[in-house]
Amino acid sequence: MAGILSGMRIVEGSAFVAAPLGGMTLAQLGADVIRFDPIGGGIDYRRWPLADSGDSLYWVGLNKGKRSIAIDVRSPEGRELATALITADGPQAGLFLTNFPGTGWLDYERLRAARADLIMLNVLGNHDGSSAVDYTVNCAVGFPAMTGRDGAAKPVNHVMPGWDVAAGLTACVGLLAAERHRRATGEGQLIRLPLSDVALAVVGALGMIAEVEVNGAPRPAYGNDLFGAFGRDFPTRDGRRVMVAAISPRQWQALVATTGMAEKFALVEKLYEVDLRQEGDRFTARDGIAAVLGPWIAARTLDEVRALFDAGDVLWGPYQDMAQLLSEDARASTANPLFGVVDQAGIGPYRVPRSTLDFAAVERLPALAAPALGQHTDEVLSGVLGLPDHAIGDLRQRRVVA
Amino acid sequence: MAGILSGMRIVEGSAFVAAPLGGMTLAQLGADVIRFDPIGGGIDYRRWPLADSGDSLYWVGLNKGKRSIAIDVRSPEGRELATALITADGPQAGLFLTNFPGTGWLDYERLRAARADLIMLNVLGNHDGSSAVDYTVNCAVGFPAMTGRDGAAKPVNHVMPGWDVAAGLTACVGLLAAERHRRATGEGQLIRLPLSDVALAVVGALGMIAEVEVNGAPRPAYGNDLFGAFGRDFPTRDGRRVMVAAISPRQWQALVATTGMAEKFALVEKLYEVDLRQEGDRFTARDGIAAVLGPWIAARTLDEVRALFDAGDVLWGPYQDMAQLLSEDARASTANPLFGVVDQAGIGPYRVPRSTLDFAAVERLPALAAPALGQHTDEVLSGVLGLPDHAIGDLRQRRVVA
Repeated sequence: MAGILSGMRIVEGSAFVAAPLGGMTLAQLGADVIRFDPIGGGIDYRRWPLADSGDSLYWVGLNKGKRSIAIDVRSPEGRELATALITADGPQAGLFLTNFPGTGWLDYERLRAARADLIMLNVLGNHDGSSAVDYTVNCAVGFPAMTGRDGAAKPVNHVMPGWDVAAGLTACVGLLAAERHRRATGEGQLIRLPLSDVALAVVGALGMIAEVEVNGAPRPAYGNDLFGAFGRDFPTRDGRRVMVAAISPRQWQALVATTGMAEKFALVEKLYEVDLRQEGDRFTARDGIAAVLGPWIAARTLDEVRALFDAGDVLWGPYQDMAQLLSEDARASTANPLFGVVDQAGIGPYRVPRSTLDFAAVERLPALAAPALGQHTDEVLSGVLGLPDHAIGDLRQRRVVA
Repeated sequence: MAGILSGMRIVEGSAFVAAPLGGMTLAQLGADVIRFDPIGGGIDYRRWPLADSGDSLYWVGLNKGKRSIAIDVRSPEGRELATALITADGPQAGLFLTNFPGTGWLDYERLRAARADLIMLNVLGNHDGSSAVDYTVNCAVGFPAMTGRDGAAKPVNHVMPGWDVAAGLTACVGLLAAERHRRATGEGQLIRLPLSDVALAVVGALGMIAEVEVNGAPRPAYGNDLFGAFGRDFPTRDGRRVMVAAISPRQWQALVATTGMAEKFALVEKLYEVDLRQEGDRFTARDGIAAVLGPWIAARTLDEVRALFDAGDVLWGPYQDMAQLLSEDARASTANPLFGVVDQAGIGPYRVPRSTLDFAAVERLPALAAPALGQHTDEVLSGVLGLPDHAIGDLRQRRVVA
């Protein structure tokens, strides 16, 4: 089955989240993504969570649909092989994605000697080449100071590695843009993408730099409240919790109509001297709105709230922990075409997401398993580098590959 | 100055974060991104935070480098104009990015009647077409239950709209992949991208679905601790706070060597019966590690910690609120080539991020301002649709455009 990127080949030298997620995103679109790792696995190969078998659920999650080759890149011969792989022929090959330092044998100019039109995307920590990871970027960019409930201890780290995810997806944008440029001009290039720049760009995009620099008013922590309009979490009668929001005028009207609380909200308007049709006024008077909504929701079970809110087109969602997500939410099941069931070696069958992008012109690729480490070593050495069996056997025997 | 995507034209019909961020990402790479909005602005045009002038810092942050045309799309004539814009000629045009419902006049098949090879990327809430926004997706996908300090009230919403950011970047991947496909085959297409699928795919990529489904062990909240290795936040002597992590063996060795606490860590190993060279063991014995590190950091100021940790290549970062980020961190200043200073009309000069991707083959475009609403109405009607001045004047007079 052909994906939208079928024919394109990317070689990936990577670890952890950002670069592997980038490679996986392209693999799920049909690109041939070959990840090379040291024999025995790279530094992310045993990253938690682990299955009982010791296999990493994290590693298989981030390497779905790739081919895997294990090479001893500490040896000169291994580095030569990896270089040959990175720079192998083919008009849609010659794309290298890495978060390793682009120095030594991975220096772009050095690699380029073997393929003049090589495209190399290097995910860095900081723009000056110094180290940074999602945890050490996140603490620096202000969000932990404004995350968490009013009065609760700060800072609060995010658990979702948002900067890694954003960097991995940006890496895909960079590779596709560079490949487009190469098609038009024949020219390859090095592309640098610093993780901390990705975070800073988001901070800027959301207006938070201007809040400080222009308004001189950094945003305080507003807990679970949505800033600048109405949004807050509420407990239900049966001990669950829901997030309710009204950003647009239509969403606010839906909330008023569905709860039948127009009169109470009119009192809130008088009390706070606001016009609740204005989003900013809904933020100003959010405690008043919550004083009306809270008892209404607390008098109902989650199912009752769901039925009424869904029927009334209210913007809301239930809080679900991971177990509830998988057991209660059809979006996280194979009823959603996003998911397939994959039997992952060493781990067993479980539901696995496919590409989030659904292209009308091609069938979405089925859910894909991650490779076993070195599963495609022979296939890649033979198919991509054209090595004969006896040469591959020799490399295996001398533990240059595995 | 030419960006890597110069020549490509994208028409954007959008609001809020995901689709505008996607369009902006492409604009910052040199694409001609034309955003159309209702006369007077769309539903995100006054989104907080606001400048004293009433201009939205959020809106200008998410629309940098685009051209703006204001059209009354409630009128049949306005819809015709917008359709003509979306489907305008040009081998690198015919790309439409939207998070509006793809129904009515924005139905793909209807638009396609005017340009057979149209590429349209539709960011949806849920895959079934129902509504969802970052807030109502985030509560559903488990992270708020595991975010925040041990014992603190849950759930804790993230403040960074991570799903919107991921969806916006994925939209860029989708558009570039579809344009590549069109170059090869001549074929356009509709691409659907549901926001909640983006979140679920990340949950899956991080191994969190498998943690529940395979291991039957959803992850509890670990506060600011890094899961599966060592990472925690600590206060310094001068009342600041740092995040310290050791994921790789090298990072752990750096931490041990720099603090000079090898003997104490050996005692931790005996106490917990672990081998701290193993990342998982560092998680198991994290309280022991913290008992050694905590006093060492608490005895030093942030500057002292910084000097020692930087010299010793420790993986760490300071916590900074937004004001500290801008005043203390060179990465958030124009010393970092990411940033330029832009004088934004109605707002004033402030530092603005450029593209996070630095392509060697083209100069990085300067930091770009957002357009004023309708700033390019005449220019687009004339330059893209070829309308003569008198026709534009007539449209203006009848308030079809502004």
